[in-house]
Amino acid sequence: MKIPRPILNLIEYFERLPGIGPKTAQRLTFFLLNFPKEDLERFGESLVELKTKTRFCNICKNVTEDDTCIVCSDPTRNEKQIAVVSGPMDTIALDKAGFKGVYHVLHGIIDPLNNIGPEEIFIKELLERITKLDSNVSFEDMGDDKSGVEIILATNTSMEGESTAMYISKMIKERGFDAEKVIITRIARGLPVGGDIEYADDITLSRALEGRTEI
Amino acid sequence: MKIPRPILNLIEYFERLPGIGPKTAQRLTFFLLNFPKEDLERFGESLVELKTKTRFCNICKNVTEDDTCIVCSDPTRNEKQIAVVSGPMDTIALDKAGFKGVYHVLHGIIDPLNNIGPEEIFIKELLERITKLDSNVSFEDMGDDKSGVEIILATNTSMEGESTAMYISKMIKERGFDAEKVIITRIARGLPVGGDIEYADDITLSRALEGRTEI
Repeated sequence: MKIPRPILNLIEYFERLPGIGPKTAQRLTFFLLNFPKEDLERFGESLVELKTKTRFCNICKNVTEDDTCIVCSDPTRNEKQIAVVSGPMDTIALDKAGFKGVYHVLHGIIDPLNNIGPEEIFIKELLERITKLDSNVSFEDMGDDKSGVEIILATNTSMEGESTAMYISKMIKERGFDAEKVIITRIARGLPVGGDIEYADDITLSRALEGRTEI
Repeated sequence: MKIPRPILNLIEYFERLPGIGPKTAQRLTFFLLNFPKEDLERFGESLVELKTKTRFCNICKNVTEDDTCIVCSDPTRNEKQIAVVSGPMDTIALDKAGFKGVYHVLHGIIDPLNNIGPEEIFIKELLERITKLDSNVSFEDMGDDKSGVEIILATNTSMEGESTAMYISKMIKERGFDAEKVIITRIARGLPVGGDIEYADDITLSRALEGRTEI
């Protein structure tokens, strides 16, 4: 049976979304046929406004409505701790986990197989941001904690995430900042909480051993 | 963390779709942030056009671009066999199964708990359609098969589907059509192909016994 074009169009758009196959795309589309026309219009507008009404924060590059995002303009957050993440969703996850520093959103990960090089993501902007902090901020003035800026590399622990972290770390070190002023750290790799040693894969387990801490 | 309004709007719309929870809605929305602006616009347009560019077929009430749908205007289909279904997706499923008759789409199911009565769905239109066929068509002219119109009640085998089928059957009978001209049938309920008698539920099994056929 030939499905009418306007219905097929929407099915095809849904199919392009992650985790949505042809059958689900069809179900969603036919479900929307029961939506009031006004709701479909507002849904459509939200899609358009997703990009037209948002921009990148001029400091951390996270998606925001204003020039500077909520996190970067919040004086209670520790701007000396910058978590480098690959996407905006990671900032939500870290916030939920209780992170009180600020972010730098790369909007991607270095992935040569998919033609994403270091220039395609916001690495240059991160280096500029650190340079600016390094030259402008007198760390002694920032409170009783005299340590410098901490760059926490919080990209995924996938192969691409690891190599992106390695690359960024190398680039920062090449800039020759004072090692006491710019500290680079990487999130710990180990067993997830509730994890079974018996079922853990070799690499995770060897990373968990390497990263062991004294108790 | 406060998520920007334009992003939240879209997340909320995705959450209203069946099978999409808060987490998936978030993932889909942030995925769309990487879409080109033009694609988001076209996606939005497709949502609006889903209703503005479609209408109900003037015969079977299926969703269509033209006044009469592809099935109803296809002369090779048997217009003496009308499958009554609850939604447009059911017509696609029956077509795939090889059904060569025509459809009548109710656009819903009688469901008193959700305030859907017989007037909310296209039952009246079905009765009018049968009346018209009964008075206009001389069955003897329709080919060598002299039997009348067959109304196949193909609603779901859920409680609501069964009671909708019962209600429609009662309404058709009350109209007093010639019993040889208007035959009412119900799709078979039994074990799905590949089904295990051991694991079948009692009701399915008792229906399968009731509906047994000689071989």
